[in-house]
Amino acid sequence: MAAELAVAGVGMTRFTKQAERGHAGLAAEAVGGALEHAGLRPADVGAAFCASVGGGVGIGQRVLKDLGVAGVPITNIENACASGPTALRNALAWITAGFADCVLVVGVEILSARRGPLAMPEGRAAATGLNLPGWYALKARRHMATYGLTAEDLASVAVKSRRLARHNPFAHFREPIDVDEVLAAPMVADPLTRPQCCPNVDGAAAAVVCSGDFARARGVRPVWIRGGSMVSGTHVYVDEPIGDAAARAATLAWDDAGVGPDDVDVVECHDAFTIAEILSTEALGICPEGEGGRYAAKGATSPGGDRAVVNPSGGLLSRGHPLGASGLGQVAEVVWQLRAEAGARQVPAARLGVVHTMGASEFDLDANACVMHVFEAGP
Amino acid sequence: MAAELAVAGVGMTRFTKQAERGHAGLAAEAVGGALEHAGLRPADVGAAFCASVGGGVGIGQRVLKDLGVAGVPITNIENACASGPTALRNALAWITAGFADCVLVVGVEILSARRGPLAMPEGRAAATGLNLPGWYALKARRHMATYGLTAEDLASVAVKSRRLARHNPFAHFREPIDVDEVLAAPMVADPLTRPQCCPNVDGAAAAVVCSGDFARARGVRPVWIRGGSMVSGTHVYVDEPIGDAAARAATLAWDDAGVGPDDVDVVECHDAFTIAEILSTEALGICPEGEGGRYAAKGATSPGGDRAVVNPSGGLLSRGHPLGASGLGQVAEVVWQLRAEAGARQVPAARLGVVHTMGASEFDLDANACVMHVFEAGP
Repeated sequence: MAAELAVAGVGMTRFTKQAERGHAGLAAEAVGGALEHAGLRPADVGAAFCASVGGGVGIGQRVLKDLGVAGVPITNIENACASGPTALRNALAWITAGFADCVLVVGVEILSARRGPLAMPEGRAAATGLNLPGWYALKARRHMATYGLTAEDLASVAVKSRRLARHNPFAHFREPIDVDEVLAAPMVADPLTRPQCCPNVDGAAAAVVCSGDFARARGVRPVWIRGGSMVSGTHVYVDEPIGDAAARAATLAWDDAGVGPDDVDVVECHDAFTIAEILSTEALGICPEGEGGRYAAKGATSPGGDRAVVNPSGGLLSRGHPLGASGLGQVAEVVWQLRAEAGARQVPAARLGVVHTMGASEFDLDANACVMHVFEAGP
Repeated sequence: MAAELAVAGVGMTRFTKQAERGHAGLAAEAVGGALEHAGLRPADVGAAFCASVGGGVGIGQRVLKDLGVAGVPITNIENACASGPTALRNALAWITAGFADCVLVVGVEILSARRGPLAMPEGRAAATGLNLPGWYALKARRHMATYGLTAEDLASVAVKSRRLARHNPFAHFREPIDVDEVLAAPMVADPLTRPQCCPNVDGAAAAVVCSGDFARARGVRPVWIRGGSMVSGTHVYVDEPIGDAAARAATLAWDDAGVGPDDVDVVECHDAFTIAEILSTEALGICPEGEGGRYAAKGATSPGGDRAVVNPSGGLLSRGHPLGASGLGQVAEVVWQLRAEAGARQVPAARLGVVHTMGASEFDLDANACVMHVFEAGP
């Protein structure tokens, strides 16, 4: 990034089935946590963004109006699973442009109580009947055919996820599971069994971001945003082994940040399905093309491995995936890791972290989004 | 605005009942028109924003992917009736920040075919049962009680709207109407009869915005954006005569642009109901407080009057109000006026124009948004 940009604080609810709390109740906990973490007050916020897929008209105004964040510009953002990081990207544009010095970004979603689709069916997926598990299952089968990915290596991603999530109080699933149990679980879309698919849960997450000058003036303990990128898909047909958006976003953001996959300590990426983590780690260059499954299985992306720790939070597979909140939950984890505040799941001496988030609409799988940011521990 | 920002081109469909064209079909006409107006190609676009309230997940990606605007960052924006101008505001932040030199903003909505509400009922409106016509009706009654607004003056806003819309090929309603007909029409929410309420229609509108450097390098004929503002509501309870957001946005934007209501030639404001135009012209300072109805009735805000011409397009009342597209339709009209391209509805020698848009969720009427921009004719 050209400008000095900092995360001042983050907060989130546990991601779990809790629809009865309502959007406002969930957002209040996340926003309150982020402001407290930042040492700031609602009145310090000069603009706000709210990420949600199904929250409905005026979601940001509705959840923020009773929290003391009122009067300021509020923009509601939707970008499928990448809604939260898209909101973050826009917040960073506002700060860089001088439109605001301190911006609140909140994501909130109630998914467990939803009935029916999130959008009118249009486009390719509606024409083919292919939904997201089916789409990722095709990608997994292609990876198996092309690179020799095994069902066991695929399952090992879910095993790693649960092992790490044991230490994450914000995760929905925290019970360990082994490869045999993953493989024996009910099939969702062959070869993806149930523990290989993220759960539909409810939650909120928030981040307060600010300019370097604001951080210094207010004594904020910064996690710096070193670089980032945002791209959309370009007709990623379902028979391609990997979406080009994931790799393009990675290339742009590594370049923007001036660092690469060998430099990074911790990565939160979009493991909505086991195969998605494999594809993302390959797109990021954390693992060589075709090796994502083997690297996960041999522990290279676990604590103590020789690559960045991938999804130390347990990722979407265990923490859960409340769409609009999900990517900001990834941001919260990376910020905690870089502030050495991640408790029992702390990656030792983490200095550089990445959030890489895919978004795809179930109603048009090739019209997707990918957002990445590189974060660096403050002084 | 601190930076040099220009509108390079605008385009829109007629706003009317045309749900069968689909979001992509409507967007294609608006985007194609805006690019042609700008003399630019899809590949010139470095980022895109899509404004829609009910378009569903990934609406921007879905409507843009077959138009040659692919790969670039696409953000989907919702801010109720102010969605389009909110998208514009974010596009201007990206240009100012240097995130992109040329940004496409498109709004699209299919409203006539919608069944059921746009969001889950939460908040105050759900508790009171008050919907938008009822809310504006209360505001009209309060204006009558406080300032002596008459039913005839109120109706005159609808008469003016239809008179001007006769010359607008993009308007849904183009037949003249007189005060007696307005007053005799079926009551929607006392005192607002049917011609005093905007129609639910379908449509798309688009604008291409760019930096001053980009405009000069590419030979773009600019309409400059001199200033702007964006605010949210702060608990605008329904018994207040006017939302404070409308006036706060006006004050901020006049200050940002360094001009005032006496300087402006043409205004597109949010006449979702006749009373809304009256309240907006007062909030803008085009008319004194309490005088908006009398000014409209005596022709002060019509062509040939002594104030800015208000809603020369026919406004939302006649052009129609396809939510996400609506505010960008206002932008299109002002840009055409400032380029002297408005045909039979041209305001002579228009140099300075304003778009002022209110947004309110039917599900929480006090959590609203207001966006304003001041435009200036190029050299």
